[in-house]
Amino acid sequence: MKLILLSGGSGKRLWPLSNDIRSKQFLKMLHGPNGVPESMVQRIWRQLDSNKLVDHVYISTSKQQTDLIEKQLGTDVSLIIEPEQRDTFPAIALAATYLHSIQGVHPNEVVVVMPVDPYVEDPFFMKIKQLENLIFQSGADLGLIGVTPTYASTKYGYIVPHKDEDELESGRPYKRVKSFKEKPTEEQAGRLLEQEALWNCGVFAFRLGYLIEKLKKNGYPVDYNKLVALYENLSKISFDYEVVEKAEHVIVVPYQGYWKDLGTWNTITDEMNANVIGRSIINENCSNTHIINELNIPVAAIGLSDMVVAASPDGILVIEKTKSHLVKNITTIVDQRPMFEERRWGWYRVVDFQKLDENTEMLTKKLHIDAQKNLSYQYHHHRREVWVIVSGEGEFVLDDSLRLIGPGDVLEIPVGAKHGIKALTDMDIIEVQLGSKLEENDIVRLFMSWEELKTYLNHT
Amino acid sequence: MKLILLSGGSGKRLWPLSNDIRSKQFLKMLHGPNGVPESMVQRIWRQLDSNKLVDHVYISTSKQQTDLIEKQLGTDVSLIIEPEQRDTFPAIALAATYLHSIQGVHPNEVVVVMPVDPYVEDPFFMKIKQLENLIFQSGADLGLIGVTPTYASTKYGYIVPHKDEDELESGRPYKRVKSFKEKPTEEQAGRLLEQEALWNCGVFAFRLGYLIEKLKKNGYPVDYNKLVALYENLSKISFDYEVVEKAEHVIVVPYQGYWKDLGTWNTITDEMNANVIGRSIINENCSNTHIINELNIPVAAIGLSDMVVAASPDGILVIEKTKSHLVKNITTIVDQRPMFEERRWGWYRVVDFQKLDENTEMLTKKLHIDAQKNLSYQYHHHRREVWVIVSGEGEFVLDDSLRLIGPGDVLEIPVGAKHGIKALTDMDIIEVQLGSKLEENDIVRLFMSWEELKTYLNHT
Repeated sequence: MKLILLSGGSGKRLWPLSNDIRSKQFLKMLHGPNGVPESMVQRIWRQLDSNKLVDHVYISTSKQQTDLIEKQLGTDVSLIIEPEQRDTFPAIALAATYLHSIQGVHPNEVVVVMPVDPYVEDPFFMKIKQLENLIFQSGADLGLIGVTPTYASTKYGYIVPHKDEDELESGRPYKRVKSFKEKPTEEQAGRLLEQEALWNCGVFAFRLGYLIEKLKKNGYPVDYNKLVALYENLSKISFDYEVVEKAEHVIVVPYQGYWKDLGTWNTITDEMNANVIGRSIINENCSNTHIINELNIPVAAIGLSDMVVAASPDGILVIEKTKSHLVKNITTIVDQRPMFEERRWGWYRVVDFQKLDENTEMLTKKLHIDAQKNLSYQYHHHRREVWVIVSGEGEFVLDDSLRLIGPGDVLEIPVGAKHGIKALTDMDIIEVQLGSKLEENDIVRLFMSWEELKTYLNHT
Repeated sequence: MKLILLSGGSGKRLWPLSNDIRSKQFLKMLHGPNGVPESMVQRIWRQLDSNKLVDHVYISTSKQQTDLIEKQLGTDVSLIIEPEQRDTFPAIALAATYLHSIQGVHPNEVVVVMPVDPYVEDPFFMKIKQLENLIFQSGADLGLIGVTPTYASTKYGYIVPHKDEDELESGRPYKRVKSFKEKPTEEQAGRLLEQEALWNCGVFAFRLGYLIEKLKKNGYPVDYNKLVALYENLSKISFDYEVVEKAEHVIVVPYQGYWKDLGTWNTITDEMNANVIGRSIINENCSNTHIINELNIPVAAIGLSDMVVAASPDGILVIEKTKSHLVKNITTIVDQRPMFEERRWGWYRVVDFQKLDENTEMLTKKLHIDAQKNLSYQYHHHRREVWVIVSGEGEFVLDDSLRLIGPGDVLEIPVGAKHGIKALTDMDIIEVQLGSKLEENDIVRLFMSWEELKTYLNHT
């Protein structure tokens, strides 16, 4: 069996903590073992590991997320990187061609695809393991996991099983699927429960050969590199729509355990083990209220009921929990660059910015570089930079000349000057950018690796 | 007549916008003429001006507030500066000795003392003017203004008039005062209304000679400089307690117009002309909710009722309006230096701070210096500084040597180095402080005036 974890999503619904770069699955808001905060990705990885599934896992993701995945899970993770984010059908098709043409996986191997962020308990992974046998046993094209509903939700998709036979009673641990219903009205949801419909939690199992044949039949290349080449032309279409709903023989395995889609502030705060994260004062007049504060100034809440206050360098949100679904609209109004990013080498935070005139802007950042990590050797077309080393020792290269630097050093980097830095110990820097285009993409990277840079310096 | 405006107060009840340095009377949250935001101080000054009282005004205040008063009202204001903040009795006594011994004001001149921050309409100032005549007409020691209560408040002090005569009916526009009652219970307040008691709004009128005699009798010096010299030994005691409640013949002039003590978030937001100040998104699910945002990141509110969200560099407050009186407790919990200050020369804002180890801290500030203003020529014992000039042109002096500076210049100031800067045009600076004691008071000022500094430089 191969497991594909889909790690996509822009996480607009958890603004201001999530943004286009910081997807919700990376936010460390859950309580992990020993009280250490963990992210959704870290939680599922820990569960896959304890259920002995982790060696079979590939993560399908975008280039932007690779830094964070490696930071949170380590660099041993097998990644299948989408050239750009489309939807689940292109992502799963790409993963299938990768297994088929690059890894040489046998067509009879069962592939199970699942999202990276369901909040579930261990029995869920038993169901995942069962799917492999059930695909063969049933002869089905596709196997799904269906969550037994706890109420008539209008937010989820439903899987409707055939009624005319009771397969579970007959000893078979699956049902045959009759139809699907996406986000029903409350009335419809009530009737779906009567039909013993199940929530679709986005888990799909199939023989690799099944999907490869399907791709061939529909004119897609089944060679990974060829699919990558035309990836940007693929339609943004979901796997449910393109494959699952068109399949003839689909089975579903019911799962009655804990399952939650932690996509909104009201659902995620339910899983926090404390009412506050960060510098917060919550007085005794508050009830069912959560504060998540990433800023280094205090947040005080007085007299709040059923609310979430979330503060990050991107903004401040105050919301009544039942209105959590409205958060995604905020991001369309807020037109602002991300103010905090975690990177391969550490993190940065924008602490001040100012538009000086039509052609000049100023941006001040706090940078943290982890010990032994480096920024790439790079230059900028449109900005000069001043770095003040606050703490840590490191190596700094400016226009091919290397020197050691430490706390209090001031490094001036003119427009066009090549520069790079490697932290020998954990390092904090205040960086002031001045120029005409203060965008992350005004950057020309010459060497990503410090070793390559040093080899180059030794030969010039 | 002389008018003394008392400008004291630390304004803990409007945290995070007010703090020990930024008292509530300086916050520009009211809507002034032509929609320009104005502070309480600016509003009362405009009203005193239009009522032709402004030429008779002295402001009694602390040294810390002088920068802000001059910035908001101009430098022509007559100030009587308390060596340190005590209470209203020492402050009024000091003002009286100033008028008596420095200004040579006649003992028969009537002095009217009032707070700097009542929210009133023009008829209030008519009452102030009336007090002068009524002191002589009635022969009273003290004249007060009493606000006709609109409900049985438990928050205010009450002035109880004599019942046995109806002076107002008899054509006299004042009543004789029988007694006082500070912050009654609700039941007591109800009974006070039956007795036609009035709210005490902190206005006191008296002949200057009356207070001077009183001071003499109680052993206080009536020479201003002598009183300044022993000011720190004076008891923190209110004028109400020390003088008003002990006086034999006190009258009160009823005022039936608009009067409000804008001391808390619920009262001040009532007087805002828009629901938001600053970068804010308030969705249609909110009702009776105000956002005041001084940060340059957006604040979004969804589904809030009867709430205030206030964000400043000092912190973020979310409060249900009826709980506004609980804010003052917050400041006792938040142990933090002020993160924003307005100064004589402009303003600064702390954008980042970090404790590096037992002996080292880092603080990054954004400074704005107004054109033609200067920082004093100074040095620090415990910190080095790096200044990056973001915008503006200016003169910079480092260890007695002057040079012209402009955008992009980087100025390094070692520990102990004398330095000063004058902005020729409006100037923005990013300042990084590194050292062992990053406190505002690690500063030795050599010259406050740029002219004096230049004269000194020309002679060395």
